[in-house]
Amino acid sequence: MSAGHILTLNAGSSSLKFGLFSADGETCLAHGLADRIGRGGTLGLHLPGKSGPDLPALPGAAALTDHHATVEAILTTLAQVFPGLAVRAVGHRVVHGGPDFTAPVVLDAGLVARLEAFSPFAPLHQPHNLDAVRAAFAHFPAALQVAAFDTAFHRSQPFVNDTYALPPEWYARGLRRYGFHGLSYQFIAGELARTAPDLHAGRVVVAHLGNGASMCAMRGGRGVASTMGFSTLDGLPMGTRPGQIDPGVLLYMLQQQGMSVAEVSDLLYHNAGLRGMSGLSNDMRTLEAANTPAARAAIDYFVGRIRRELGGLAAALGGLDGLVFTAGIGENAARLRAEVCAGMDWFGLTLDPVANAAHARTISMPGARVQVLVIPTNEEQMIARAAVQALAGQSAA
Amino acid sequence: MSAGHILTLNAGSSSLKFGLFSADGETCLAHGLADRIGRGGTLGLHLPGKSGPDLPALPGAAALTDHHATVEAILTTLAQVFPGLAVRAVGHRVVHGGPDFTAPVVLDAGLVARLEAFSPFAPLHQPHNLDAVRAAFAHFPAALQVAAFDTAFHRSQPFVNDTYALPPEWYARGLRRYGFHGLSYQFIAGELARTAPDLHAGRVVVAHLGNGASMCAMRGGRGVASTMGFSTLDGLPMGTRPGQIDPGVLLYMLQQQGMSVAEVSDLLYHNAGLRGMSGLSNDMRTLEAANTPAARAAIDYFVGRIRRELGGLAAALGGLDGLVFTAGIGENAARLRAEVCAGMDWFGLTLDPVANAAHARTISMPGARVQVLVIPTNEEQMIARAAVQALAGQSAA
Repeated sequence: MSAGHILTLNAGSSSLKFGLFSADGETCLAHGLADRIGRGGTLGLHLPGKSGPDLPALPGAAALTDHHATVEAILTTLAQVFPGLAVRAVGHRVVHGGPDFTAPVVLDAGLVARLEAFSPFAPLHQPHNLDAVRAAFAHFPAALQVAAFDTAFHRSQPFVNDTYALPPEWYARGLRRYGFHGLSYQFIAGELARTAPDLHAGRVVVAHLGNGASMCAMRGGRGVASTMGFSTLDGLPMGTRPGQIDPGVLLYMLQQQGMSVAEVSDLLYHNAGLRGMSGLSNDMRTLEAANTPAARAAIDYFVGRIRRELGGLAAALGGLDGLVFTAGIGENAARLRAEVCAGMDWFGLTLDPVANAAHARTISMPGARVQVLVIPTNEEQMIARAAVQALAGQSAA
Repeated sequence: MSAGHILTLNAGSSSLKFGLFSADGETCLAHGLADRIGRGGTLGLHLPGKSGPDLPALPGAAALTDHHATVEAILTTLAQVFPGLAVRAVGHRVVHGGPDFTAPVVLDAGLVARLEAFSPFAPLHQPHNLDAVRAAFAHFPAALQVAAFDTAFHRSQPFVNDTYALPPEWYARGLRRYGFHGLSYQFIAGELARTAPDLHAGRVVVAHLGNGASMCAMRGGRGVASTMGFSTLDGLPMGTRPGQIDPGVLLYMLQQQGMSVAEVSDLLYHNAGLRGMSGLSNDMRTLEAANTPAARAAIDYFVGRIRRELGGLAAALGGLDGLVFTAGIGENAARLRAEVCAGMDWFGLTLDPVANAAHARTISMPGARVQVLVIPTNEEQMIARAAVQALAGQSAA
C-alpha cells in the first residue's frame, strides 16, 4: 500500500464534513466539521482516541466565507496537525449519481459537468457537493478526485421497485426511485459479508434511522427495494420531512389553500416530520425526554411507519432473514427498537430485551427466525474506501 | 317491513348509476346507468334475471341535459316499468363525509350545506354527488334522502394510521387519511360477519381491486388502516392514477419541468396508473390480452405494489388471518390473484390453484394459516341498506 493520505469531503449547503484517513482508507486519523459557512462559520477538528473538546481551526486558517475558503482552511489546519500531510486522493460524497452510475467514479471536468446535469433532481444538495469538488480540484491539484454516490447502491433494484406508475417517458427522463443513504447501506452490506456471510447471502432489511431516515431491502448484499424514492422526502418520516404523503395533499395545498410551490416545498423539507408533528424538536432524544402528547404522537407515527415499511419490504423480498438497525437513532434508541419489533413474533421477529437494552450486536432471541442486529454505520469510511480503490485502479491501468 | 321502494343514486361528473330495491333493501329490482350527461347522454336499464341488452330510456323520458333532468328521466322510466312505483327513501353515495361522519345520515338543507364544505377535499366528485341530492329532493319531495359515505368506514382508524407527519393544525383542518371505497369494505365486513364470524373477529386485509383500487386492514370488522389517503390518488396504482408517489416528483414537475398545477393534477388523475404505464389501456383484461412489454410492466407493478401493501397492512394489524379479493379485478383476475400470492408461503399464505382458477369463495389451501377469499362486493346494496335503516330510525323516533 502506497504512503500518503486520503481526504473525504461531505458538503452541505453551509457545512462541510471532512475526514483524514490512512493510505489504505481503513484508519481515520482525524475528522471534523466546518459549520455555518458564509455566516461567520467555525471549524472543529477531532482526533480519534483523544478526549476533550474538538480542536478549533488553527491560526492562519482562512475565514469560512464559502466552500472554497473552507477547503483551504481544512487543508491549512490539517497540515499543521499532520506535518507530513500528503493527500493522494479526495473522496467526495455526491448525493446524486443519476440513473446510470452504479459505483464510484474518478472525476474530471467532463464528469463534473455530467453530475451538474443531475442538480435538478437534488437542487438542495447536488450543487453544494459539486462546489466542494471544484474547491478540492483547486487545492489538491495532484490528488485523484473521486465521487461516491448516495444513489449507486440502489441501482440494482428491479424495474418494478424503481419506477412510478407514470408514462414510460418519465422513467427514461430519470424519474426513478433513487433511494439515497446508499453509502450507509453499502457499508452495512460489507459488514454483513465480513461478519455474517449467511445473512449477507439472504434477505435483509436495513433501517438507517437518523435525522434522515430510510429502509432498504437487500438480497445477497444488493439493493432490491427502498423506502426513499425520487427525492429525500418519501418513505419514513424524518427529523423535518414527512416521509410518505398523498400527492393529493400537495394538490390541496396548492389548489385549495393558495400556497405557492415554494411554500409547500419549504413545509415538506423543513417543517414537517418529527419536528412538525411534535412542535418541539427533530431530535428523538428530546422527544423521548419531553413525553408530551404531541411528542409521543410523533414517535408513535415514526414507529408505525417503520413497522409498515418493514412488512412491505419483507413482502418485496419474499421473506426476511435479518433486520439491521443503524445510524444515530437506530444504533442508540433501544426503546424505539423494542417498539418497532413488539408483537412481530408472527413474523419470526422476537427481540431479546436484555441484549437490546445493552445495544448488543445481536438483539434478537436465540433461535428466532429473523436475526436482528445493531451495526454502527460509517459512511465516511465508504468514501475513503472508494478513493483507495480508485487509486488502485489508476496504478493498475 | 313497510311497502314501497328504495332508490339508490351514485353520481359522477357526467354519469349517474341508479338502483331500485325492495322496501327491505335486500332485493334489487332494477339498476342502470345514465352516461354522458350533458353530451347527448343515454340511459340504460337492466332488470336482474333478464338476459338481453339493457333497456333504453323509455319514450317520454327527458333529455339528459344535467343531473336534474337525468333524475327526472330515471323516474319517468322506472314508473313505466314499475307501475306501482313508490320511492320511500333515496340513498345517495356521497364520496366525502369529512372527519366526523362515521355512519350514514338523513339529509336536510343544513346537512347538504355541511357536506358542500367538504368539496375542496374531493373537488372532482363531491359537487356532483350533491347535485344528485338536490335533484332528488326536487323529484322525490316526500322521500327520505340519505347519504352513505365512502369515508365513514375508515373513521375508526387509530390516529397514527389517520395522520400525516405534518404540523397538527393540518390534521385539525381535516387533512386525514380518508381511505375511500368504504361502502365496499363495509359490505365485505358484513359478509364476513354473516358467513365467517371467526375471520370477521380477526385480522383481515381486503383488496378492493377495480378501476379504482385500494386495500383496507380491518380487525373485528372495523377499519384499522388503508392504502388510500387524503385523496383517491394514493396507495395502489389504478386505471389512470399512480397510487404511491414521492411528493418530490410533484415538486420536480412544478419547479424543474415548468408544469402548472393543473397539468400535474391532470397527469396524476387521468394519464398515470395502468394506462399511463402501458400506453394502452386502463383495463386489466386488455393488458393481460395484449402482453406487450409495457402492458406486462404495468401488471407487474400493480402486483408488486399490492404485495408490498399487503405486507405493510399485515404489520399494521400485527399479523394476518384473512385476505379478501373483491371488485372487478379482484373477483375475476385469477392470474393476478395467483401472482399476488406467489411465494408468500413464509407469510402463511398459500393459494389452491384449482379453487383460484374456478373463482371459488375460498381459494387458499386447506389448513393454510391465512384464509384467502373471493367475495363479490355490492356497494349499491350498502346504500340501499343505509336508506332502510334510516327509515326504520325515523319511524322509531
